[in-house]
Amino acid sequence: MDEIITLDYGSGGKKTARLIEEMILPDFDNPALRLLGDGAVLPGEAELAFSTDSFVVAPLFFPGGDIGKLAVCGTVNDLAMCGAEPRYLSCSLILEEGLPLETLRQVLASMKKAAHDAGVQIVTGDTKVVEKGRGDGLYLNTAGIGFIRHRLEGLEAVRPGDAVLVSGTVGDHGTAVMLARTGMMEGDIRSDCCALNRLAEAMLSSGAAVRILRDPTRGGVATTLNEFTEGRGFGIELSEREIPVRQEVRAACEMLGLDPLYCANEGKLLAVCAQEDAEKLLACMRALPEGENAALIGHVTDDAPGRVTLRTGLGGRRILQKLAGAQLPRIC
Amino acid sequence: MDEIITLDYGSGGKKTARLIEEMILPDFDNPALRLLGDGAVLPGEAELAFSTDSFVVAPLFFPGGDIGKLAVCGTVNDLAMCGAEPRYLSCSLILEEGLPLETLRQVLASMKKAAHDAGVQIVTGDTKVVEKGRGDGLYLNTAGIGFIRHRLEGLEAVRPGDAVLVSGTVGDHGTAVMLARTGMMEGDIRSDCCALNRLAEAMLSSGAAVRILRDPTRGGVATTLNEFTEGRGFGIELSEREIPVRQEVRAACEMLGLDPLYCANEGKLLAVCAQEDAEKLLACMRALPEGENAALIGHVTDDAPGRVTLRTGLGGRRILQKLAGAQLPRIC
Repeated sequence: MDEIITLDYGSGGKKTARLIEEMILPDFDNPALRLLGDGAVLPGEAELAFSTDSFVVAPLFFPGGDIGKLAVCGTVNDLAMCGAEPRYLSCSLILEEGLPLETLRQVLASMKKAAHDAGVQIVTGDTKVVEKGRGDGLYLNTAGIGFIRHRLEGLEAVRPGDAVLVSGTVGDHGTAVMLARTGMMEGDIRSDCCALNRLAEAMLSSGAAVRILRDPTRGGVATTLNEFTEGRGFGIELSEREIPVRQEVRAACEMLGLDPLYCANEGKLLAVCAQEDAEKLLACMRALPEGENAALIGHVTDDAPGRVTLRTGLGGRRILQKLAGAQLPRIC
Repeated sequence: MDEIITLDYGSGGKKTARLIEEMILPDFDNPALRLLGDGAVLPGEAELAFSTDSFVVAPLFFPGGDIGKLAVCGTVNDLAMCGAEPRYLSCSLILEEGLPLETLRQVLASMKKAAHDAGVQIVTGDTKVVEKGRGDGLYLNTAGIGFIRHRLEGLEAVRPGDAVLVSGTVGDHGTAVMLARTGMMEGDIRSDCCALNRLAEAMLSSGAAVRILRDPTRGGVATTLNEFTEGRGFGIELSEREIPVRQEVRAACEMLGLDPLYCANEGKLLAVCAQEDAEKLLACMRALPEGENAALIGHVTDDAPGRVTLRTGLGGRRILQKLAGAQLPRIC
């Protein structure tokens, strides 16, 4: 491990995983702190889900969203991926000296709207201010509590032949933020930032055998699927031609040197389900606006355990590894 | 309101209160988001307390504690002040590029110890990295969940003649951090940073009529008591000679131009209780190490509604207002 923090450690890829596994988990280890998934499922008087995220996205505003909407939807989604009904959020602000109040006002209004739309309440918070040059406008943390409504079968239940679904087009958020950062905002590329709790609830109420849900944020679809297969006795094979990517996102990624499969999404989920339930689950997803472009993009296999492979449009195969460095720093 | 954020907005005093009241509460308003207290009490399947704090203290390490211990104890204490048993914490890191991993290792080890000592588990987390010059080593957010064990009577139950208690010496944390910042670390001044959940539990199980508990952090004892009296039909009169202040803290405050009554505490609580229960409650507090210097420091009065006044050692009286500016930036 390098002996200082580099930007790679924030990428959501390999370095982030090593930091968490080697330094953080050993200290905090307990049954509820689970490696997979961004929320904890807590035993107790009621079964709770608990999650937190700090948001450091730059710029604060981008087509399709802003740091406030992102902070609400991100934590709502982490809870929803646990099978929980998200209910309560906290909001903690780290403001940089010199931040225009108007900026803060807009972010708060955006949080208000996003919380209302997702059906959650922001119930507690905190405000800190740091000197100019010790922050970047504002950083925003949300934590959230949800009540567990569904038990996912878990990675243990995944078996060869299972279907891998994505709820819509891939790479929109990462591309939109990168374009906003470069100042190139022409075109119609917008972040997909949205709350997925209603979609997850519909899927988990459908009766389909859903093994796992996960929102592929930092590190993108490729990194999240690697987290599924890592150390397991199965692999995942994706079919490139089935993966929905907007034409303009594909073009922008080529221009920026990005791969949409590694770009952050903020309004998409991945699901692994029994193959026989895949059509039913897809129909259920497509019935909601946030799942209208849902697609079956691959299958679980037993011939390359631990690996995610991509069958390309030309019939070749390549291995998709976890994101290695910081493809997209400060994307969320 | 000034149209940009200044350091005063982070002081925990008047400006912080205005920011919250004028900008944040109107957007997020809901029954659980209460003005007083740093935690929310949530209805639902089980009665929950939920709280969050971001920590930006500089320096990261100071006599008696560090940002990790502070982040665990701070959120534990906010939950305990709601009458809750703190149970689960989240941990979200914003790391600055270039941070030595050894620093992070020490902070995490400190969090581990503090969580163990307080009887809570850190169950979920997040890690972000920002570029050099966009942070200050590390910022740390904790959120926490507790289960409500006791119902406090609330400010509505406060009446003239009630006793005001403090659990120990005042001003230790703020003074220790300011001395560490100036590089003057001689003497024996240490932060009082510690978890108060066992003390609060003992007090609330004692049978005493406790109206309210609160930990006087940013803004100190004077600011917290003003939050009690603000807009109410009662005032509070403190007796200066009864307020426990370490001799070395008093001397350091004089040198630094600080007032111990406005200095942050991180291991002290204030309680308002029925006068007839005061001795019993003090005895209960003094039976625990974290309350060994507990004292009755004043009473609720009806002759100066809304005001906190200090009867000085010489017999004079002065009004203690809320902290107006940033006496101590980045103290927690």
